[in-house]
Amino acid sequence: MASFGHGGNAKVISRENKLQYEKIIDFSANINPLGAPTSVKKAIIDGLDEIEKYPDITYFELKDSIGEYENINIDNIILGNGAAEVLFNIVKGINPKKSLILAPTFSEYEEAVRAVNGDIIYYELKEENNFCIQEDILEHIDDKIDLMFICNPNNPTGVITSKDLLEKILIKAQENNVILLIDESFLDFMEEDLSMISYINKYENLVIIKSLTKFFALPGIRIGYAICNSLLKEKVEMISPAWNINILAEIATKVAVKDDNYITESIKFIKNEKEYLFNELRQIKELKVFKPSVNFILLKNLRNMDLKNELLKNNILIRSCHNYEGLNNDFYRVAVRNHAENIMIIQNLKNIFEEYVNKE
Amino acid sequence: MASFGHGGNAKVISRENKLQYEKIIDFSANINPLGAPTSVKKAIIDGLDEIEKYPDITYFELKDSIGEYENINIDNIILGNGAAEVLFNIVKGINPKKSLILAPTFSEYEEAVRAVNGDIIYYELKEENNFCIQEDILEHIDDKIDLMFICNPNNPTGVITSKDLLEKILIKAQENNVILLIDESFLDFMEEDLSMISYINKYENLVIIKSLTKFFALPGIRIGYAICNSLLKEKVEMISPAWNINILAEIATKVAVKDDNYITESIKFIKNEKEYLFNELRQIKELKVFKPSVNFILLKNLRNMDLKNELLKNNILIRSCHNYEGLNNDFYRVAVRNHAENIMIIQNLKNIFEEYVNKE
Repeated sequence: MASFGHGGNAKVISRENKLQYEKIIDFSANINPLGAPTSVKKAIIDGLDEIEKYPDITYFELKDSIGEYENINIDNIILGNGAAEVLFNIVKGINPKKSLILAPTFSEYEEAVRAVNGDIIYYELKEENNFCIQEDILEHIDDKIDLMFICNPNNPTGVITSKDLLEKILIKAQENNVILLIDESFLDFMEEDLSMISYINKYENLVIIKSLTKFFALPGIRIGYAICNSLLKEKVEMISPAWNINILAEIATKVAVKDDNYITESIKFIKNEKEYLFNELRQIKELKVFKPSVNFILLKNLRNMDLKNELLKNNILIRSCHNYEGLNNDFYRVAVRNHAENIMIIQNLKNIFEEYVNKE
Repeated sequence: MASFGHGGNAKVISRENKLQYEKIIDFSANINPLGAPTSVKKAIIDGLDEIEKYPDITYFELKDSIGEYENINIDNIILGNGAAEVLFNIVKGINPKKSLILAPTFSEYEEAVRAVNGDIIYYELKEENNFCIQEDILEHIDDKIDLMFICNPNNPTGVITSKDLLEKILIKAQENNVILLIDESFLDFMEEDLSMISYINKYENLVIIKSLTKFFALPGIRIGYAICNSLLKEKVEMISPAWNINILAEIATKVAVKDDNYITESIKFIKNEKEYLFNELRQIKELKVFKPSVNFILLKNLRNMDLKNELLKNNILIRSCHNYEGLNNDFYRVAVRNHAENIMIIQNLKNIFEEYVNKE
C-alpha cells in the first residue's frame, strides 16, 4: 500500500493535527476544481439500484465508451479500479527484473515495481534543466532494462516530454526489448494533443496508463485504464480478479467521457487559473516557481522553514515533496483550485513570508 | 479474470441470447432478495459529493465499522475491492507452491492460485456423502501443501462444515505449516453462529475471507475483507495498490453493518423462503435437491436435457454447474429469491418437466 506521503490525505492529516476536516482547503490533491460533472452525479442517483447487480463481467459498454473517448479499439483497453490498480497489475504481468524510473516522479511506479521485487535505476531530472528529460536518457536504455516509466506531464514537476523525444525513446526501447509505460493521467487538462495513444499500433512496446480521477474530479470513484497491445492485455487480465470496477464507477465513466461541455469548460478553466496562480506565485520572491503545464505547480521554498505546516495553521493543505526521490524539504506541489481559493493561498503565502522576514 | 461461468452474468447472457436484460429474473446470482438496505441507498445519495475526494488512505473509519461488526481488532482486517480482490492479494502474499482445494467449490480460489502459477490438489467431495467434507480430509494435509481453501457454507453445495472439524483441520494444518483460508461470505445468512473469526488469535495459520456483496445485496459496490494475523496483513498490504476501496463502497459498508433491522429481517426472510423453495423443489421427482443452508440450492437434474436453456426461454436464469470441478451438466444452482419469484421458478420447472414427459 502507498505510504501516507501522497497528496489527497486531508482526512488523515486533519486527524493527526486535530483540525476540522471540513475546513481544510486541499491543494495537495490534483483534482479538477470544477468538481465532478453534474451529469455524473445525476447518473449515479438515477442508476443507484444497479448496486444490487453484478457489473457486466466483460465491461463491454464501459470499454466501448472509453474506446470512443480515446479513439481506440476496445481490445486494447485494460480497466482498473483506479490507475493504481491497473499499474500494479501491468507491472505484475510484465514482471520486470530491472526498471528505469524518473526522479522525481509519481511514487506509485516504484511501489508497483517493488511489489514484484524488481530492481530500479533512476534517471535523474536536474533542477538546472528545469527537470526536463534530456536526450541523454537514450543512453540509459539498454537490454538489461525490462520496463521504463515516463509520466507526461510529469508529476510533480509539470514538465511535458515532446512526442519527438518520446518516439526516439520508444525506438531505442524497442531495439532493446524494453516496454515504455507512459502515464497520461493529466494530459486531458491540456488543450494541445500530446497523447501517444495513436502510436499504440505502431509500437508493441508502448503502454499508456490513464486515470480519470483527476480530470473528472472522481477520486472517490476509482477508475483508470491502460491502453496496450492485446497480447499484454490478455496476460494482465488473466492475473486480475473479476468485477474489479464497481458499477457506480462504470455509470460515472460512461457519462463523464461524453460530457463535452464539462470537458471544454475544464480545459479553459484550468488554463486561465493556472496562468493566474503561476503569475501571482512568481511575484513572491521567496519562492522559485516552475512553469506548470496542467493543474499543479511545483514550488521551491528559498527560505528555511516548513511551508506546509505554516499554511496548515490556516487550514490550507499543500503537498510536501520531501519524499520524492530527487527532491527535498524545500519543494512543494500546489494544485490549481478555484479563483477565490487561489487568491487565498497567494495571500497566505505572502503573509507567511512577511512574518518570516519580520522575525529575522 | 474470471471466466464467464460465474453466476450474475445476466447482462452478458441477455446480450448473447438476444433477450431483454430488464426482463430476466436472475436466480444465478446468490444475492439477498430483499435488495440493498434503504439506509445504504440514502447514505450514498447524502454522501455523493464525497466522490470528489480521495478516500481516507488508511480507511480508519471503515475498518472500525467492520471491526465492530465482526468483533475483532482493526489490525486484523485487510480490505478488498470485493472479496475477489482480497483473495487474489492474499494468495499473492502467501505465494503458495501447492494448494488444496475442494471439488466442487467456488472457482475463484483456483483462479487466484493459477495467477501465481501454483499447483493444485483437489479434495473430492462425493455426491454419496451429500458433498460433505469427511474426516479423511486430514490425511490430505501434509507439509508439501502451503495453503488450503474451505468455503463455509460451500458454494455451490450449501454444505456447512462444523466448527469441530474445522478446528481439527486447523490443528493438522498448523503442524504442517499450512495456511487455512475459510471463505465465510454466506455465513451472515445463518441464524446460528458458525464463524471461525474468534479463532483468529488462537491460530496464526487461519485466514477468513468475507464478501458483503451477497448478504447486503451490494454486488455492484464491490466490498470484501479478510481477517488474519497482522504479519500476513502487512505483507499483503505491501503488495496492494492504494485507495482500493471506492468511497461509495466505504459509505455503504459503514451504514450496512449497523443496520440491525435489515440484518434480522434478512436472516428471517431467507430462512422461510429457503425452506419453502426447498420443500417445493423436492416434490419435483425429476430433480434431486440437496439440503440448503443459506440462500442457494444445488439441484441435480435427473432428466437428460438443458434445464438452464429451457428456463431461459421464460426469462428465468439459473446457474449451470457444468464448469465446477467435480460436477457436470446435470447440476444447477438456484438462488432463493422473493416469494412470488420462487413460486414462478417452481411452476416453470413443473411445466418444463411435464412437457418433457409428454414428449417422451
